Amino acid sequence: MSAPTTANLRDFYAGKRILITGGVGFIGSNLAIRLVALGAEVMVVDSMIPAYGANLANLEPVSDRIRVNFSDIRDQHTMSYLVRDQDVVFSLAGQLSHLDSMVDPATDLDINCRSQLSLLEKCRMGRPGVKIVFTSTRQLYGRPHYLPVDENHPLHPIDINGINNLAAERYYTLYHEVYGLRTVSLRLTNTYGPRMDLQSNSKGFLGIFVRKALLGEKIRIYGDGQQRRDFNHVDDVVDALLLAGVSDDINGKSFNLGYPRSYSLQELAELLRSLACFEVENIPFPPERKAIDIGDYYADFSAYRNATGWTPQIDLPEGLAKTVEYFRQHWDKYLPAPA
Amino acid sequence: MSAPTTANLRDFYAGKRILITGGVGFIGSNLAIRLVALGAEVMVVDSMIPAYGANLANLEPVSDRIRVNFSDIRDQHTMSYLVRDQDVVFSLAGQLSHLDSMVDPATDLDINCRSQLSLLEKCRMGRPGVKIVFTSTRQLYGRPHYLPVDENHPLHPIDINGINNLAAERYYTLYHEVYGLRTVSLRLTNTYGPRMDLQSNSKGFLGIFVRKALLGEKIRIYGDGQQRRDFNHVDDVVDALLLAGVSDDINGKSFNLGYPRSYSLQELAELLRSLACFEVENIPFPPERKAIDIGDYYADFSAYRNATGWTPQIDLPEGLAKTVEYFRQHWDKYLPAPA
Repeated sequence: MSAPTTANLRDFYAGKRILITGGVGFIGSNLAIRLVALGAEVMVVDSMIPAYGANLANLEPVSDRIRVNFSDIRDQHTMSYLVRDQDVVFSLAGQLSHLDSMVDPATDLDINCRSQLSLLEKCRMGRPGVKIVFTSTRQLYGRPHYLPVDENHPLHPIDINGINNLAAERYYTLYHEVYGLRTVSLRLTNTYGPRMDLQSNSKGFLGIFVRKALLGEKIRIYGDGQQRRDFNHVDDVVDALLLAGVSDDINGKSFNLGYPRSYSLQELAELLRSLACFEVENIPFPPERKAIDIGDYYADFSAYRNATGWTPQIDLPEGLAKTVEYFRQHWDKYLPAPA
Repeated sequence: MSAPTTANLRDFYAGKRILITGGVGFIGSNLAIRLVALGAEVMVVDSMIPAYGANLANLEPVSDRIRVNFSDIRDQHTMSYLVRDQDVVFSLAGQLSHLDSMVDPATDLDINCRSQLSLLEKCRMGRPGVKIVFTSTRQLYGRPHYLPVDENHPLHPIDINGINNLAAERYYTLYHEVYGLRTVSLRLTNTYGPRMDLQSNSKGFLGIFVRKALLGEKIRIYGDGQQRRDFNHVDDVVDALLLAGVSDDINGKSFNLGYPRSYSLQELAELLRSLACFEVENIPFPPERKAIDIGDYYADFSAYRNATGWTPQIDLPEGLAKTVEYFRQHWDKYLPAPA
């Protein structure tokens, strides 16, 4: 199957009613902008919880062609109302911090399990024909037993966030198997690009690295920096989400995203050093982070490529350059003034 | 490793402070009675939710040597107080109906996930040295890919109850791996015996069969009755729970219970017919039950046998005879008068 063209996606999405939960955040806003360009009627829902990454500046390019509804996915009545006439729901809202999930597991459960289950119930009862695309995480696999990690790899989440995301993913599968709901889950790997959250220190190293590079601050790498990762530019992730919304052959399933080559954290830092001026220091792993570190990880995404034709187009050097360029242009909306 | 004797268990449990959640229910009350006999100081906690199976008559043999505390495991403050000085917590309270979990998934989530997570948090913060034994379910495996099912079998729960129990089990593992909490999970198969809930129509066929046999009512078997199952008498399950409480080699793990031979539902009905007078009729599967049926299931429990020496002693013919005898003696506390 060849990769669908923008024209194919436009045929599908033009005029469609789309709901994006977490749509003021990083991936949600990039998705919203693409969908508006494809002619969709887009509503984004966001709770604007501080530190979760929402930023209205993200939606400036489409602010006059989109509806923004401030509400929390934990609010069942509101969600029931909002899904009632949608064609596709992109369920992106979530508590993303693995560290925070260990500090406050009940909140992680409410947002990442209870609200997902409720969304599925509301769709089943009020909008059974809707398509729902759920963004899950590579963290379900825990520490890899082999590389690259495919979907047959054992699941062994090593933090509350991973356990809760896994339960949520299983709800999506179950609602397809039992009720025929048109659901699909994508397990995202490290995603970066314009509109990413640069402020948070608890959502992984990528945002921290990019922020520090832009501010000229020293980047501290835990351990020897040889841990390997795969990286997806957000434009490729948006493509994957749009394809998931289009395809009904994949309902009830879960797929890895990923990239054909991996980079070490040290290589990532060096790539950033070709774009900005800062120092790198290797420091020992703090114990509370070592406890939830997974070592090397990169995914085999061939199942999703075979099912939909999706192949990521943007390699890390090019993607980082675009990212740095974006934030240099929109500095004031994302970061304090550089020292 | 040879099976521990009652004397070994008495050495461990005598004088120990034990909390049993769901302790007025079927398995919990049998466990409480054994623990009192072993010299333990037992407190049972139960919410007495109608239809969940609690029956104070279960505890009559020990009513003057046990503390009964009526509270809900969803009540975090109470649970925090109750675990503060326990040596072993048996976490048995749960919403057990697979069918009900599909009708009211949010309640199943609150009881089977949220409360378990909260219990672990309260133990971690207020009683980190406590041992916690969690009763999980064979339903985590879904429809078996091979038989007997061992712990390496893929996990594919086919209802909300299974998904939520799986998440709960993973919390128990995680709290051992990350915080060193002394947790272990046992995946129970069909359990029967004195004090089982005969009233409920939504907790599996076993209680229904025994009730109908005792009342002389026609037993209806879905399909051809050739579905095979393994059956554990509750005394064997109590042994398994007591051993789990004793052993620290197995912390963080999950084990199957089971029995060395399986029976078809038709054979089960015939065994009951040797003990009581009633008719059997085979009827087509109702669709809402077919959707969550798993076909044949029986477990490989050798991992738990190897780890603790546990081997079930009571085969189905003997166990059913004991069960029928118990209920005939205590008829008025469990059933309406026979027609």
